[in-house]
Amino acid sequence: MSALLRGRREFLEISRIAGRFPRATAPILPADTAEVSVWCSNDYLGMGQAPAVLEAVKKAVDENGAGSGGSRNISGTNRYHMQLEVELAALHRKDAALLFSTGYTTNSGALPILAGRFPGTVVFSDEKNHASIIDGIRQSRAEKRIFRHNDADHLAELLAAADPDRPKMIVAESIYSMDGDVAPLAEIADLARRYHALTYLDEVHAVGMYGPRGAGVAAQQGLENEFDVIMGTLAKGFGTIGGYIAGSAPLVEAVRMFSPYFIFTTSLPPAMAAGALAAVRHLTTSETEREILHRNAAFTHQLLDDRRIPYVSAMSHIVSVFVGDEAKCRTASSILLHRHGIYVQPIDAPSVRPGHAVLRATPSATHQEAEIVRFADALDDIWKELDLPRATAGRLVAEMTE
Amino acid sequence: MSALLRGRREFLEISRIAGRFPRATAPILPADTAEVSVWCSNDYLGMGQAPAVLEAVKKAVDENGAGSGGSRNISGTNRYHMQLEVELAALHRKDAALLFSTGYTTNSGALPILAGRFPGTVVFSDEKNHASIIDGIRQSRAEKRIFRHNDADHLAELLAAADPDRPKMIVAESIYSMDGDVAPLAEIADLARRYHALTYLDEVHAVGMYGPRGAGVAAQQGLENEFDVIMGTLAKGFGTIGGYIAGSAPLVEAVRMFSPYFIFTTSLPPAMAAGALAAVRHLTTSETEREILHRNAAFTHQLLDDRRIPYVSAMSHIVSVFVGDEAKCRTASSILLHRHGIYVQPIDAPSVRPGHAVLRATPSATHQEAEIVRFADALDDIWKELDLPRATAGRLVAEMTE
Repeated sequence: MSALLRGRREFLEISRIAGRFPRATAPILPADTAEVSVWCSNDYLGMGQAPAVLEAVKKAVDENGAGSGGSRNISGTNRYHMQLEVELAALHRKDAALLFSTGYTTNSGALPILAGRFPGTVVFSDEKNHASIIDGIRQSRAEKRIFRHNDADHLAELLAAADPDRPKMIVAESIYSMDGDVAPLAEIADLARRYHALTYLDEVHAVGMYGPRGAGVAAQQGLENEFDVIMGTLAKGFGTIGGYIAGSAPLVEAVRMFSPYFIFTTSLPPAMAAGALAAVRHLTTSETEREILHRNAAFTHQLLDDRRIPYVSAMSHIVSVFVGDEAKCRTASSILLHRHGIYVQPIDAPSVRPGHAVLRATPSATHQEAEIVRFADALDDIWKELDLPRATAGRLVAEMTE
Repeated sequence: MSALLRGRREFLEISRIAGRFPRATAPILPADTAEVSVWCSNDYLGMGQAPAVLEAVKKAVDENGAGSGGSRNISGTNRYHMQLEVELAALHRKDAALLFSTGYTTNSGALPILAGRFPGTVVFSDEKNHASIIDGIRQSRAEKRIFRHNDADHLAELLAAADPDRPKMIVAESIYSMDGDVAPLAEIADLARRYHALTYLDEVHAVGMYGPRGAGVAAQQGLENEFDVIMGTLAKGFGTIGGYIAGSAPLVEAVRMFSPYFIFTTSLPPAMAAGALAAVRHLTTSETEREILHRNAAFTHQLLDDRRIPYVSAMSHIVSVFVGDEAKCRTASSILLHRHGIYVQPIDAPSVRPGHAVLRATPSATHQEAEIVRFADALDDIWKELDLPRATAGRLVAEMTE
């Protein structure tokens, strides 16, 4: 077992300060600098500290208590679960929605049912799909074809080569976690129509943040009707916990009736459903958080361009600063934390390919401009100190990571 | 797809009234009777409404916000996660503990790592183990032998028949969900020692409720050191959400490093960890809730004996009233709800065998004696009305369900 312990890493304990996020306390640091600016949270819009959300959570705690007290079928369906499912279905203009306790179990729970619904289904899955999607497809036992990342031509080839009589399903994410790149949704939708494939779109890094009312990237591109199932999370843009699918009544009903990850688990705490409901409702009317988020992301990318700090991200709210070497990436992260009070977790294999370590930074809607300048300046210092390669043409060109 | 919709059942929407649980509002009922007494919740001790728990949740919401903002490794490790893991390890007198977002994913996440840790491991699993255990073992791809429910002799046979050189693991629950029956822990522990098998004990229906400080049934029997891994939930006796394992440092560390269900998911909301921590701490010192729970369970069983209402449960806090026929069981549940304001979900296949439908009732520490009498009297009326079979010797004898 000791081999398992090699490379053990401790988690950094940070406690976010509600109302002052991205500030958080970090007891690992000396007392006089024991606050950090968090640059790697997925609470992209700050909904985890939005007054309306916190009030909704506390009100529901007062009304209904802490936990739900049961699975959805056995005493664990609270009014807030029902209202949230209605709200999420409306957000995505679908018949129905279904809550899961986490985003991970939404994918690992829904995909085995959906991909397993017709015998002989072939699933076409993007090579960079999240671990939970891979898990769900594996559990479906459906035959799987992997298409190259965001490569619609390759997807077209694989679809053309498959037996025309077999049921087909295409699974993709709208925005990918590590590089923040966007899937070619129009082309995927065209192919799905041509080959009569069911489409399942994971919008966990998009819901709340993109599109009209925060409905996601498919909605932003006017394509929400082209995707049979939209999958989202409540733990990122909506600041709480849980995941969901939205789709046609029969598809959602099939998952509701047959997914063990839905059936055999205690439902979300009513208070968390109430908080998520407040977040979804707030973001259907307020554009403010989305505007600041995208302005901050563009500003961060621009400051990196100015300093020729390489990054592999583009077009979205995720800023993946490219370091490459794993050890140097950890050192850079450590200097950021201990010298600058900036917390960005280094990301290495298996989340990215070996030798392609990144600092996946997430300037949120709660970061101030001055804070973003400090972040870019700190990176500039570190780039000098560690003699890290500079970007040659502003943005790091794609071939560096391909 | 329409075949999938046959047998569709709606979930009953109930909203528990914090401070007055087991009372809950049920909008399905006419306004003048729109409150029910919940008799099927797993919030066995009422910790979901305990003032200390609710205050802890709200305080942590004020301090740290709604969601955690990230996975455990990426900005999502809050002080309450750390404190709760320390507290749970201490509760079970183990080196370490590890939190998961749900009890289901604790089993489906930990077992693949533990059963997969040594090549060639053979897993011995009780035939009535929970869906999440079956899922976890399946995902481990380890070879599996099923022993008859709570049958230590059969387990011994299977162990004796297995290759002595292969690593072995025994997986059982301490209290089984449907019948509330207790596993032969001492015999299992003896066999594990004799055959050098790793032991994994699911105590989800026991933690908080049995043993010194609520440490569970193994602790109650002085056997906690005999089980390598204790698995528990925070969503039943502890009234919130989440699950955990407690065990030796290397075992827990292996799961922490390799389980995708732990790694790739947003961590529990800090406020829910804070609430669970308050519940665990309360129950390590207070015996009151445990005493009332067991008194209420014994009283319920006694009233059923008096009325010759058959049940298949014994010796624990779960009261499974035996109806048998699925349609009659649903009718009985419906009469309880609509005429008596008592909510017990009928349980049929696949949770129990076909033709063995039960009303799985859970008198909690929050039920009053008068309420328990009303429940037994309501059943008595229904037994007359539906002409259901009476128990012949007080308790329904085991052979009826074997």
